[in-house]
Amino acid sequence: MVTPSEPGREPRPGLSRRKLLGAAGVGALAAGAAGGGYAVGREPAAPIVVDPDAAPVPFDGVHQAGIVTPAQDRLYFATFDMTSEKRSDLISLLQDWTAAARQMSQGNDVGKFGAVAGSRYAPPEDTGEALGLPPSGLTITVGFGRSLFSVDGKGTGVARFGLDGQLPDRLKDLPSFSGDRLDRALCDGDLAIQACANDPQVAVHAVRNLVRIAFGRASVRYSQMGFGRTSSTSTAQVTPRNLFGFKDGTANIKVEEKSDVDDFVWVHENEGPAWLVGGSYLVSRKINMRIETWDREPLEGQERIIGRTKGSGGPTSGGDEFATIDFATKGADGEPAIAMKSHVRLAHPDFNKGAKLLRRGYNFVDGSNGLGQLSAGLFFLAYQRDPEKQFVQIQRSLAGLQNDLLNEYLVHVGSALFACPPGVGPKGFWGDKLFT
Amino acid sequence: MVTPSEPGREPRPGLSRRKLLGAAGVGALAAGAAGGGYAVGREPAAPIVVDPDAAPVPFDGVHQAGIVTPAQDRLYFATFDMTSEKRSDLISLLQDWTAAARQMSQGNDVGKFGAVAGSRYAPPEDTGEALGLPPSGLTITVGFGRSLFSVDGKGTGVARFGLDGQLPDRLKDLPSFSGDRLDRALCDGDLAIQACANDPQVAVHAVRNLVRIAFGRASVRYSQMGFGRTSSTSTAQVTPRNLFGFKDGTANIKVEEKSDVDDFVWVHENEGPAWLVGGSYLVSRKINMRIETWDREPLEGQERIIGRTKGSGGPTSGGDEFATIDFATKGADGEPAIAMKSHVRLAHPDFNKGAKLLRRGYNFVDGSNGLGQLSAGLFFLAYQRDPEKQFVQIQRSLAGLQNDLLNEYLVHVGSALFACPPGVGPKGFWGDKLFT
Repeated sequence: MVTPSEPGREPRPGLSRRKLLGAAGVGALAAGAAGGGYAVGREPAAPIVVDPDAAPVPFDGVHQAGIVTPAQDRLYFATFDMTSEKRSDLISLLQDWTAAARQMSQGNDVGKFGAVAGSRYAPPEDTGEALGLPPSGLTITVGFGRSLFSVDGKGTGVARFGLDGQLPDRLKDLPSFSGDRLDRALCDGDLAIQACANDPQVAVHAVRNLVRIAFGRASVRYSQMGFGRTSSTSTAQVTPRNLFGFKDGTANIKVEEKSDVDDFVWVHENEGPAWLVGGSYLVSRKINMRIETWDREPLEGQERIIGRTKGSGGPTSGGDEFATIDFATKGADGEPAIAMKSHVRLAHPDFNKGAKLLRRGYNFVDGSNGLGQLSAGLFFLAYQRDPEKQFVQIQRSLAGLQNDLLNEYLVHVGSALFACPPGVGPKGFWGDKLFT
Repeated sequence: MVTPSEPGREPRPGLSRRKLLGAAGVGALAAGAAGGGYAVGREPAAPIVVDPDAAPVPFDGVHQAGIVTPAQDRLYFATFDMTSEKRSDLISLLQDWTAAARQMSQGNDVGKFGAVAGSRYAPPEDTGEALGLPPSGLTITVGFGRSLFSVDGKGTGVARFGLDGQLPDRLKDLPSFSGDRLDRALCDGDLAIQACANDPQVAVHAVRNLVRIAFGRASVRYSQMGFGRTSSTSTAQVTPRNLFGFKDGTANIKVEEKSDVDDFVWVHENEGPAWLVGGSYLVSRKINMRIETWDREPLEGQERIIGRTKGSGGPTSGGDEFATIDFATKGADGEPAIAMKSHVRLAHPDFNKGAKLLRRGYNFVDGSNGLGQLSAGLFFLAYQRDPEKQFVQIQRSLAGLQNDLLNEYLVHVGSALFACPPGVGPKGFWGDKLFT
């Protein structure tokens, strides 16, 4: 990266963006992540309140952050293709990315000197648009696509980057599902970065700086902004609504449910190559929604299709949002109160050999489509231990117009599967066990 | 709209979305807009704090909200073309939009029954994704494009919608500027809607419902999400940063500066047709940024191009962010400390016959561009009293590679000018004086 060339300018490792905050901070309520409490004195009636949305999430750990971290409000997701075929470039990229992600997640600039220190005659190491912003719950999570392990194009029959024998069996291409209309430019990728934060500027800053660091080694394949989380992933969170106007994620795995997290999220010992133990598989699906058509469906139809009421989110079999779904109850018309082809029934573990997912998706709007309509939908993200038994099982139940009633209003245009390595220690880097 | 058909279901006019909030509210700090203060009791050390970002902004008034409202964090902007040529359709559209905007800005559902009441056998009047969310500072601002007043296509020589004589002289097509690369699909429009809020889901909900209401009368021409405000418009706001990493809006008109607001924002008496008095002109420009190239420019160059330091935002002539810019000072090299072609100098009122703008722009990222780069930039929005003397004057100073050094890193791809009518009283509708 940048070599300091000016004498007298000392490096400031770990320069905190928060040090640059004025007394006003970033709004009256966001007093930064550390400290807090009440102002002492006679006059100030206003308390100093620590905004939990501004706080940092630890980077190092047994698992990567951003999986069982309660879902933040905003997303910027990107996948990358390697533009170098050198093993050393892949290793150095992962090392550089890990160092930068560790710094940014704690609210620090990238690099030794950051955005405004170092030589004035070299490009700044950090692009600077997050200066003054708190960590904002930023997590940066990496995943590896199947193509990273594929046989290289040189006719040698060996895997790219010397990764022979490291491809997990479960890292297969996802099968085609009925109704898919995939745009290959919105699918797959050698590498994936999921940046989640409570401030979109912080998530954008993170991806942008990783893109910049990758230059000459990897470049962006596609990227997606998500403006609002559409799944509840913690018992402490209010269930948000998707763009169909329904609560989403009521029955999602909650990060507090340790048993489900262990059974359904993390890869265990002897389930593939050792480097992935403690990791997880990430499925991403870009799902466009025909919201204009949906908006013409009567309330009764919308609720029948989903299997939940629009107001409370309670199942159409009765009860409040968290009531147990009763698939046996019949309505006054003698039909099941939860329609046989309702989304909630077809996606339910009872009809999918017990399969559950940890969903972490986001609503998106990409502008308009030239037909006078909005280009809107759900960027579906789900973590799991075994894609075949979990996402593929459930999506096979849902896909196709003969199945989930909701499919009339959905078009899947992007798809990918990534193997996300476990977390790292303070001296480790993402995927380091791949290269030992 | 929807006619209630089920007996026993009473309309709930002005149904507040907040009534649906559980005790947990929307995060520990967002206790809704009304009320607040401290919890009474012995145990609770945690204060109940009113989140100012969640509060409503009044809709009715002398001027439209969303102009001198301190800029909210998020934007969804859309322009529309009329698909009907009937005067009565334009009037009813503006009446329906005004009613819906008034409701949504106060945190209420659209319509008499909203998202979950009314007949179960009709489509809900409100799409529902903002249920449970507070008003979030939502403002919805309308503008009229020149094409709304143009001579119709029937060869009669009269203006569309019977608006003869109502076209403001100052509502001209903007001139071409050196370096423009406009995509006509991202320019102009008969009508514009600027929705700003502190929660993007609330802004998206607002535009989506207005699009839906317009069906059969107008359809979307283009739309743009903005994830972060890039101008400071209030003395109470911390100056945000644009995607060049620099503070933006330091010298912007602040809404507290009554004299500047009166001189530079509002249309006065006898400055065109009576219907526009108390209104304003809105210039929108979609400006793509070559951020990858910018990021390779040394810090010294970046600061010279802008004319401000990257860290504090102070002018390169010295001093802190709000220091007076000294165009006469020279550096050690004998050159002016504020470069002659710096952005801050060429845009400054001293070199533009005193012209100022009220800027209200937003950072955007639209994904990636297929070249391994991010599609990012600034969606520029500026309000003014006289476009020729203000935006056009300043942009003529800036445009072209021989002028503003920043142009090497900018491409203007979208452009429009709208006349925004004044505010309305509780019984009025947007632009009502056009039809009297």
